[in-house]
Amino acid sequence: MAERIVRIGLAGFGTVGSGVAKLIIEDADSIAAKTGLRLELACVVDIDTTSSRPIKLPEGLLTDDMSKLLSDDTIQIGVEMIGGTDAARQVQLKMLEAGKDVVTANKALLAEHGNELYRAAHQNNRCIAFEASCAGGIPIVSAIRTGLAANNITSIYGIVNGTCNYILSNMTSKNQDFAEALAKSQEKGYAEADPTLDISGGDSAHKLAILASIAFGYEISLDDIFVEGIEGISKDDIRYGGEMGYCLKLLAIGQKDSQNRISLRVHPSFIATDSSLARVEGPFNAVSIFGDAVGQVMFYGRGAGMMPTASAVVADIIDVALGNSATSFGHSNLRPRSETAPLIEKIDNLVSRSYIRIMCRDHAGVVAQWSRVLADHDVSISGAIQHEDTGPDNTVPVVIATHPARQQNVAAALQDMEKLDVIGAKPVCIRIVDIPEDKD
Amino acid sequence: MAERIVRIGLAGFGTVGSGVAKLIIEDADSIAAKTGLRLELACVVDIDTTSSRPIKLPEGLLTDDMSKLLSDDTIQIGVEMIGGTDAARQVQLKMLEAGKDVVTANKALLAEHGNELYRAAHQNNRCIAFEASCAGGIPIVSAIRTGLAANNITSIYGIVNGTCNYILSNMTSKNQDFAEALAKSQEKGYAEADPTLDISGGDSAHKLAILASIAFGYEISLDDIFVEGIEGISKDDIRYGGEMGYCLKLLAIGQKDSQNRISLRVHPSFIATDSSLARVEGPFNAVSIFGDAVGQVMFYGRGAGMMPTASAVVADIIDVALGNSATSFGHSNLRPRSETAPLIEKIDNLVSRSYIRIMCRDHAGVVAQWSRVLADHDVSISGAIQHEDTGPDNTVPVVIATHPARQQNVAAALQDMEKLDVIGAKPVCIRIVDIPEDKD
Repeated sequence: MAERIVRIGLAGFGTVGSGVAKLIIEDADSIAAKTGLRLELACVVDIDTTSSRPIKLPEGLLTDDMSKLLSDDTIQIGVEMIGGTDAARQVQLKMLEAGKDVVTANKALLAEHGNELYRAAHQNNRCIAFEASCAGGIPIVSAIRTGLAANNITSIYGIVNGTCNYILSNMTSKNQDFAEALAKSQEKGYAEADPTLDISGGDSAHKLAILASIAFGYEISLDDIFVEGIEGISKDDIRYGGEMGYCLKLLAIGQKDSQNRISLRVHPSFIATDSSLARVEGPFNAVSIFGDAVGQVMFYGRGAGMMPTASAVVADIIDVALGNSATSFGHSNLRPRSETAPLIEKIDNLVSRSYIRIMCRDHAGVVAQWSRVLADHDVSISGAIQHEDTGPDNTVPVVIATHPARQQNVAAALQDMEKLDVIGAKPVCIRIVDIPEDKD
Repeated sequence: MAERIVRIGLAGFGTVGSGVAKLIIEDADSIAAKTGLRLELACVVDIDTTSSRPIKLPEGLLTDDMSKLLSDDTIQIGVEMIGGTDAARQVQLKMLEAGKDVVTANKALLAEHGNELYRAAHQNNRCIAFEASCAGGIPIVSAIRTGLAANNITSIYGIVNGTCNYILSNMTSKNQDFAEALAKSQEKGYAEADPTLDISGGDSAHKLAILASIAFGYEISLDDIFVEGIEGISKDDIRYGGEMGYCLKLLAIGQKDSQNRISLRVHPSFIATDSSLARVEGPFNAVSIFGDAVGQVMFYGRGAGMMPTASAVVADIIDVALGNSATSFGHSNLRPRSETAPLIEKIDNLVSRSYIRIMCRDHAGVVAQWSRVLADHDVSISGAIQHEDTGPDNTVPVVIATHPARQQNVAAALQDMEKLDVIGAKPVCIRIVDIPEDKD
């Protein structure tokens, strides 16, 4: 079979960009043998043309002049590895206008401006491939689009931020507190110097926006996603939850109910210790998907890192070059945001179980008081433990697990509990998520 | 977007065939909305045209005349759900000659005659799609071909037979012996009345042949795969192995070493209790793949059943109709079997750890005798437990875990041990597989 040359312009020569260049240069022969495509790096654009990188480029390839990439008509595919949402958005739009297909790992950009970019791609009869934007090396985008295409997908539960999972794993297994676990994850290079986007849940929300849009078929906006981060988590709650049989994970959850109402949320979640996702440790990612035909499928692997992410980027380059991405992209119709507006379920209406910790003064009648508040708001108790540990002001921790209750009611109950004299601090509330394990 | 009609001829209206018909008929609208393709069942061929099935076909669709399917030029895709290797092979060849793309779940046929069928497809400029042939609803074929295309895949470890996993899970968690667990799995409908193909490891070998051929890029024949089934497994060994930290699974293993030697084997395997695959329970399947860029990825889900398998078949129908399967199929070059002949590593040369159980007469000097035999064959001991249970003829079980040793040496040591007067029965040997967990 004759080889076909595929010329690639790479914009952004940071960590993942270097990994992409490395794979294209070092694995060109094996990729050609497998696919018949000879990948060729035509140019690499970065404002920094002097720092040393883990891959040495052939002479003359590295430039700080984006117009070299844009004006080179032999370049079929533009790979945007710049990151951020401003310059990257302009670059993607210009690549599309210049007639190039785009490959990107930029989840923030797609979550915030994806709908605009997808439209620009359709108008220019080009495609955008973004396997690497979600869960790094795990081929989850193509699994949803292609492998599960015959399913009505009813829910997605994902651990899609390796930094948060690393922090929570260490808080759980090594009894570290949040600040210590965060520092460790920075030492390891999993967390950025400014870790806000990860620990706030923002990065997980970006990925959920992308995954949910292709799974449910709607344009989804970040505003549709309820987001709570892991910054406030105390190792005591991880321990108390553990005693009740739960493990704490930052989950990205997308659900569609029988009336096609979609709910989207990212928050710390207590899940059963023996569930599949509970066993995902350290910086790993995993996504469980439920489809009406397939039941539960789960995908597991490294959600970040130079080479795992580059693996997904180059897979996309191959798929674009074969013409498959264009077909999938052309046929994946996201229904406009306006059509789904009335469908999106706000968090207040969500029915969920909760873990609640209150710090009670050790008086007679305390249980009667807090249990009355919960009952008044129609929040039913499924389990409770009064621990003998002592907190500040001679308080003791009382840990309560609730039956499913409207989140609006739970919020109101928490407010009322905080007003009780017998309660010494703001109650802690963490949702319990019962992932419907497909078993028999 | 205008819908495109895709006419499908279904050959075989058994369990999976019925599931495929059900999905095509009941989900036609949602698939059209998602993909722009209107799937239309043009005819269903089965020798049995009278039994009742879980889906009611429109009048006139069901026939026992295969020529109706073959001669209908409006049919673009032939779905072969007949099973077996004789009639099915003829039907696939005729479908290809009639200019139809083929979708199939027939692992036995592909493992035995795949190379012939793939060549026939290439000659007719058609494709064969077979996502459903391996691991049911898990999109593992497309993950290897597309999502991991940028990787040099170095190994595959799969639990790919749900019946065996259900039996071993029950033997482990419910202390059932093999016959009882097999009977339970027949009651549940997981095992056939004649369970030979499953419990002998043959079905797993079929799937390994398919997965290894696309992962490693060679035509692979069933003869290249060493196969041992689970028929001889005793629940005592599962228990003793458990005490040493191992869990018993029937694994399908494909490995490529640094000299590109491939080894392929299916056998009962003790794996570490805390490894990802150890947690795969009941009738579920999971496949762990290691790639040089991506590290470890794992895919989990239902490996069989009417709707999970139909999910994969209809995903393939969509992929074929979009033209993507043809591109992937056309570009996936399997190097001829002759080129890989010298590369395939025979089981005798394999280096593996082993679990060995011997039944020793309770005499002085016994340990010296069996340990001498192992030493003479260069098999080094990593752990040993003499249990106080008593076996037949006043023997006691001694359980030995070895360091990695050539399988030829282990086999010779077992033969010599059997000749010892102090040993009361044929030694039991089960390989210990250390799956290199990707961690940090």
